[in-house]
Amino acid sequence: MSLWGGRFTKAMDEDAWRFNASITFDKRLAAQDVRASISWARQLLVVGVLSEKEFCGIEDGLNQIQDEFLHADFLFSSGDEDIHSAVERRLYELIGLTAGKIHTGRSRNDQVTTDFRLWIMDNIPILKSHITSFQMAIINVAERDLGIVMPSYTHLQRAQPILLSHWWLAWFWPLERDLKRLDFTLDMCATLPLGSGAVAGTGFNINRQALAKDLGFQNVGQNSIDSVSDRDFAVQFLFDLVLCCQHISRLAEQTILFSTAEFGFFMLADAFSTGSSLMPQKKNADVFELARAKSGTMIGLLTGLLATLKSLPSTYDKDLQEDKQSVFQAFDILVNILTVLTKAIETLEINPVKMLAAVDPALFATDLADILVEVGVPFREAHRLAGKAVRHAYDHGSDLAHLSAREWQQLLPDLNVDVTQLFTTENSIARKKSLGGTARVRVQEQLDEAKRIILT
Amino acid sequence: MSLWGGRFTKAMDEDAWRFNASITFDKRLAAQDVRASISWARQLLVVGVLSEKEFCGIEDGLNQIQDEFLHADFLFSSGDEDIHSAVERRLYELIGLTAGKIHTGRSRNDQVTTDFRLWIMDNIPILKSHITSFQMAIINVAERDLGIVMPSYTHLQRAQPILLSHWWLAWFWPLERDLKRLDFTLDMCATLPLGSGAVAGTGFNINRQALAKDLGFQNVGQNSIDSVSDRDFAVQFLFDLVLCCQHISRLAEQTILFSTAEFGFFMLADAFSTGSSLMPQKKNADVFELARAKSGTMIGLLTGLLATLKSLPSTYDKDLQEDKQSVFQAFDILVNILTVLTKAIETLEINPVKMLAAVDPALFATDLADILVEVGVPFREAHRLAGKAVRHAYDHGSDLAHLSAREWQQLLPDLNVDVTQLFTTENSIARKKSLGGTARVRVQEQLDEAKRIILT
Amino acid sequence: MSLWGGRFTKAMDEDAWRFNASITFDKRLAAQDVRASISWARQLLVVGVLSEKEFCGIEDGLNQIQDEFLHADFLFSSGDEDIHSAVERRLYELIGLTAGKIHTGRSRNDQVTTDFRLWIMDNIPILKSHITSFQMAIINVAERDLGIVMPSYTHLQRAQPILLSHWWLAWFWPLERDLKRLDFTLDMCATLPLGSGAVAGTGFNINRQALAKDLGFQNVGQNSIDSVSDRDFAVQFLFDLVLCCQHISRLAEQTILFSTAEFGFFMLADAFSTGSSLMPQKKNADVFELARAKSGTMIGLLTGLLATLKSLPSTYDKDLQEDKQSVFQAFDILVNILTVLTKAIETLEINPVKMLAAVDPALFATDLADILVEVGVPFREAHRLAGKAVRHAYDHGSDLAHLSAREWQQLLPDLNVDVTQLFTTENSIARKKSLGGTARVRVQEQLDEAKRIILT
Amino acid sequence: MSLWGGRFTKAMDEDAWRFNASITFDKRLAAQDVRASISWARQLLVVGVLSEKEFCGIEDGLNQIQDEFLHADFLFSSGDEDIHSAVERRLYELIGLTAGKIHTGRSRNDQVTTDFRLWIMDNIPILKSHITSFQMAIINVAERDLGIVMPSYTHLQRAQPILLSHWWLAWFWPLERDLKRLDFTLDMCATLPLGSGAVAGTGFNINRQALAKDLGFQNVGQNSIDSVSDRDFAVQFLFDLVLCCQHISRLAEQTILFSTAEFGFFMLADAFSTGSSLMPQKKNADVFELARAKSGTMIGLLTGLLATLKSLPSTYDKDLQEDKQSVFQAFDILVNILTVLTKAIETLEINPVKMLAAVDPALFATDLADILVEVGVPFREAHRLAGKAVRHAYDHGSDLAHLSAREWQQLLPDLNVDVTQLFTTENSIARKKSLGGTARVRVQEQLDEAKRIILT
Repeated sequence: MSLWGGRFTKAMDEDAWRFNASITFDKRLAAQDVRASISWARQLLVVGVLSEKEFCGIEDGLNQIQDEFLHADFLFSSGDEDIHSAVERRLYELIGLTAGKIHTGRSRNDQVTTDFRLWIMDNIPILKSHITSFQMAIINVAERDLGIVMPSYTHLQRAQPILLSHWWLAWFWPLERDLKRLDFTLDMCATLPLGSGAVAGTGFNINRQALAKDLGFQNVGQNSIDSVSDRDFAVQFLFDLVLCCQHISRLAEQTILFSTAEFGFFMLADAFSTGSSLMPQKKNADVFELARAKSGTMIGLLTGLLATLKSLPSTYDKDLQEDKQSVFQAFDILVNILTVLTKAIETLEINPVKMLAAVDPALFATDLADILVEVGVPFREAHRLAGKAVRHAYDHGSDLAHLSAREWQQLLPDLNVDVTQLFTTENSIARKKSLGGTARVRVQEQLDEAKRIILT
Repeated sequence: MSLWGGRFTKAMDEDAWRFNASITFDKRLAAQDVRASISWARQLLVVGVLSEKEFCGIEDGLNQIQDEFLHADFLFSSGDEDIHSAVERRLYELIGLTAGKIHTGRSRNDQVTTDFRLWIMDNIPILKSHITSFQMAIINVAERDLGIVMPSYTHLQRAQPILLSHWWLAWFWPLERDLKRLDFTLDMCATLPLGSGAVAGTGFNINRQALAKDLGFQNVGQNSIDSVSDRDFAVQFLFDLVLCCQHISRLAEQTILFSTAEFGFFMLADAFSTGSSLMPQKKNADVFELARAKSGTMIGLLTGLLATLKSLPSTYDKDLQEDKQSVFQAFDILVNILTVLTKAIETLEINPVKMLAAVDPALFATDLADILVEVGVPFREAHRLAGKAVRHAYDHGSDLAHLSAREWQQLLPDLNVDVTQLFTTENSIARKKSLGGTARVRVQEQLDEAKRIILT
Repeated sequence: MSLWGGRFTKAMDEDAWRFNASITFDKRLAAQDVRASISWARQLLVVGVLSEKEFCGIEDGLNQIQDEFLHADFLFSSGDEDIHSAVERRLYELIGLTAGKIHTGRSRNDQVTTDFRLWIMDNIPILKSHITSFQMAIINVAERDLGIVMPSYTHLQRAQPILLSHWWLAWFWPLERDLKRLDFTLDMCATLPLGSGAVAGTGFNINRQALAKDLGFQNVGQNSIDSVSDRDFAVQFLFDLVLCCQHISRLAEQTILFSTAEFGFFMLADAFSTGSSLMPQKKNADVFELARAKSGTMIGLLTGLLATLKSLPSTYDKDLQEDKQSVFQAFDILVNILTVLTKAIETLEINPVKMLAAVDPALFATDLADILVEVGVPFREAHRLAGKAVRHAYDHGSDLAHLSAREWQQLLPDLNVDVTQLFTTENSIARKKSLGGTARVRVQEQLDEAKRIILT
Repeated sequence: MSLWGGRFTKAMDEDAWRFNASITFDKRLAAQDVRASISWARQLLVVGVLSEKEFCGIEDGLNQIQDEFLHADFLFSSGDEDIHSAVERRLYELIGLTAGKIHTGRSRNDQVTTDFRLWIMDNIPILKSHITSFQMAIINVAERDLGIVMPSYTHLQRAQPILLSHWWLAWFWPLERDLKRLDFTLDMCATLPLGSGAVAGTGFNINRQALAKDLGFQNVGQNSIDSVSDRDFAVQFLFDLVLCCQHISRLAEQTILFSTAEFGFFMLADAFSTGSSLMPQKKNADVFELARAKSGTMIGLLTGLLATLKSLPSTYDKDLQEDKQSVFQAFDILVNILTVLTKAIETLEINPVKMLAAVDPALFATDLADILVEVGVPFREAHRLAGKAVRHAYDHGSDLAHLSAREWQQLLPDLNVDVTQLFTTENSIARKKSLGGTARVRVQEQLDEAKRIILT
């Protein structure tokens, strides 16, 4: 059934019809479309467009349709152009001509963006629970691995010793920001467009505040033109998805690196890795690679939607129809990644011996500089002296932990400080005791804070 | 002056040095770098790294440097690798060896992201004031044009009559959302990274809460690794800039259209249009075209930064240096656009005659359907009848406002309704009286609300 | 059937399996996979890995599988990880253990990129025929509309009179460039990767030149590492698709504009436009809007793939799996757009009266300047004088074609030229007689050239 | 000097002027603008617009301007809107009123795209020489390192032994494709737009073929509308730059990985690495990181330009002005990267011991499978047996090279093959002797071919 056509004398070209139809993807809005229609009908009752009896008929019919969607036995027809047409067509089949009253005073322009906002509002909590599960997995491994030491890296060069749990928790906080962004986006979604008509407002005196309340919106769109053309909420949600996926991509990258033979920090579980069709010895981090790859695809989805929306010439254009596919696709990608990686993270086997072995004594160079500062050497000079000591040790095939007292005396003349005993991993880690640092007591606090956040 | 080098035996290749140096763009962080250094010195005093006298020397030196930046008489040296090196180098010149103590316990990794966050926190209010000025311009013209009627468009086809002020105000609300997003981004920026050291935390027991308070941050980064690698705040700010520019691009597009000879709704002011080097009669909407074009460039800036950040393998990588140029460039583009278009909007000459002439009677078709609904016809049937009437009028070279009573009787048999007097622009507009609609009373309310928002 | 697993002790997690599997989209490579496998088997026969009998068995089996794909009665199994596994699994079912010999000396790494290159090489001619059909439609309407005059536009402001056919043909040449790019991409695709093994080369002394010839490749990849990691061909093809779609988007945009009531140059055919669910009078250019919108989506597909490929750390990574979905999706979008718009273009109804009416006399200003040049006025001065004349006419409610001889004398003192008779559309168009100009004779030549190109 | 204004009564707003002016970046087209102007003047002479004397005056003036640009003593004026205005203004200063004749029959619309095409045509050879230098560096190190063995990687997991020179040469071929693409783009650039006027063609009977020949173009644009609006050449060039940078980004990524302590294959030269302001021991691969980062920025430049060009509504719009900045920026980025990395590559210190040590015996698993194939085991079964052997060795703390004859008999029952002596790196590499494989003879051939290509 087409929702238009009175002024047309010829049917649409078949290729054009298929090209134009959105039912293949917007059927995902079915539950929201029915729900919004019931609320709309309720307000049509209030303004007298529907009688009590008509309203009940429509409500019953729509509830049955909702049921059919729920049990996946709604039958789509080849003539269904979009989800709105499909629902109205089915309503006709169920209740007859009264169905023709449901579209009074509304347009697909305000309807579709209402449905879409509702869909995002429905799915943000679902996404948040996936993110929280991922955070929980991080907390679990961070708690498990508290005693393990590893090198931190900057520029992929070994930097300073840290606790593995500190590294794990570094992935907790970006996700926490993702949750904050999603909460904000939920707020920004919760402005009702329905009642804006096609563009100029509705011709019936609908109580839009009541409608908003009924549907779970916090605010009512103040300008009908803006309401039907605004897609900020969709782009913003898409941006949140992209940014979350970027975070995962960085964790994925490091997991891949740490799972190489060269690093050897992680061993992938069989259940989350794959082999080679040619090389029998291979064990590949495919799921992490795919997570990384798909974060590129996600960037493209955002870019594509932005390019589509850029300088659109009027209120509602058909171009806006492209918004849903990008968002649905990005949502599915991210949920899949979170589902798989939450499990994969927890099954990674840790190799503490390799990690500790990678903490080579050159990583104490900053500690050396800091110690010199404590005895009064300006940091810039202390940094220079420590650099020289590293160079000296390197040139003599030695390292900071094994230089002799005599060598130190040459390297640090006039300084009355015995540094030979200071270069241990424990000391180095314990020194980083300012808030956010890798000292054990701080990491424990950080872990407690993460648990507190997630459990409240 | 280089802030490193103790372990190096050879100087850097000159091309590599130039390629690596960031001073050409990060000097824009000068004020923030100095401010953060003073606060850092204050905490170094608290933990005893600096004596009272040393702190005062450093503070005085930094204040003088701040002054030199303010008056643009800071002299950069060819050896300045970045703003941090430049400031420390100058501090040496001013106060001698004590300058070497300022970098104690911090790294450029936590320093640069602190500076950059501060820069964004400083510039969000500036950007907001530009946006507010633009909103004010919209309010001014909306107030001025309250009596003017124009067609609204969907799919660039004439849809329904609206008030021009309703159209103007449709641009107010997207900007209002931009402001909300900027407020949120400001909150997300306000987490202090300084005190995270290079990656593992600082080796001195710095009171980071006090530091945060001193610098105007609301929170303290809980994980040093995350703190030095996180660029969410920059990407999020960049996204806000892009989205705001997208809004402007849509206004620009319509202004260009409405300024064509064919629409003729707007006449560009001489001061904001340009001519042709070949065609003497031309008057082009260059500034609107450039605003539109640059919204494409903005999308690229966001995409580029996302692609750069994607799957970065460790905490701080040099790659992060690319963040600033994108944000600075996008900020400047948007500020320029807002500056020019705020003035351009107010100087557009309106042609109410052309606008009214474009409200052709076919635009009353929805009203006809609505009226039929009011006498009991289900909307779907009413829509069909109205479509037929449009078609009939079109085929007979007439229009909805000029059909005879007899024609109406044929078109709407069995319906006891006289529609011949109903099709006026005033009636049509007045019908859209639900909240957010184009009825005069609603638009006046909307205008009042917009003014209330902007003035508080 | 999995093509690996000997070293694994646990089965893959189900979510991970689904996430990892590519069969849902790479089954599109079925025909190419089978074809390449037959050629590969032929070379295995040559080097003695297969006996004549084994080869025949494999060839028969693969031919049957090809048939099954062709008639869409190939049955996929839930265990098929990708198209390669599916084909090998089926081959086992058909011919038993000999099937296990087909994968000798090759890897999915060289296999999949061979299949994908073949797919693109197969589909470039198909795409080219769609583009050529579109060009043919342009030629048809250009030929039909040779007598019609319209204004050209720059900056969307009326510029100079042109022939409508000249405007139509402006869309022919970009598509011609698209064809050239596709030819070049075809050349760049035609380098054989098969025989590169997983990365280091194949362990059997395969004659890769013979293999290339058998499969229709022009060259053989010179470096096995590069061969398995290179995706230039895919990105380049995707770029070609994007650029072609950009061309269409510009045509779409102008068709939408020219179909507005304000321009009124085009009337959309019923078969290629849609109505409104609310506004009975509407007739929207949905198919053109969708074409425009999807050119944004296309940009995102390219961006996404580039972001995915950027700085991939090694030869074959699972990330490369993302390449196919982008290319397939972009290909389908473009083919759909070409299919629909080829028909839509030809059914647009032209309104020559509106077009001619839009050629207002100000458009002769350049001609005026040119005429002044012909009597010796330097162009810059001629341009200024013509500009003044336009301004004068505008201020006096007149236009260039209706100024009196006296007014001209005031405007052009000391110039012995009578311009009053010169300002006709015919004259103006005829003046542009240099190659590529809008003079009728040139447009006819251009049309002939376009026909010659397309028919040869 | 403004090239328009006759019809304007008010000056342009200052902010608008600055926003609109393009002189800050299009001055880079100076040489091309002057060159094209001289050729244009020559054709104006032919058609009689210029006398011989006037032409000589103009030519002399333009030659002097060219000289001033060459010696960087051209003085820009604050009123110069763009390079075209600047040149014409200066010509006035030098030769007086005759300067006003130079713009006869052309428009900035055809002029700027001619200049821009010429600029790209001038700079493609320069870029090619940078790429060739990079290839030469690759050849040098590949020749130097012929005896060195390393593991290849897929999925960043060790795959099979290869020659380091094979790995080096893997970067030669992508650059070779880049050169091919640039040649093709040069061809696509070489179509002359000049003589198209503003949009409809020029009003003078210019011999455009002669003009094309004079300026080094191969073809003449067939349609004036297309000629002024086409930016394919710029986008295509930009795409080439992006793709080349993508190649570099992958090399950069691997260089960074191979320079980690964990891989230890490469040691960065002091001249191409940087240290840390905090950690004295650090040596970072900054130049490679920046190259990687900037490949993200490059993607954004392409995306931005595509988004800007998408669905532009008419022939020449001011939006097209954005094309130059993206291309210039991308060009400079790539040239800088090539300049620095060409040198950096050659100074990397190789660690053959670490490389060889990384060729662990599990990498012979494919060879084992291949050997089993040679004695008649179907590959799929051979692959399974080899996988089991790897697993067995791993479980018993051994490896393929150290399993006993008895263990082999258990692992490969019924197989009369002695594999114990087969597992050497030399054997493994020598097996890959098909074209493009890592066998020494093939790599030597590949190297010879690369040298042949680059020297001819």
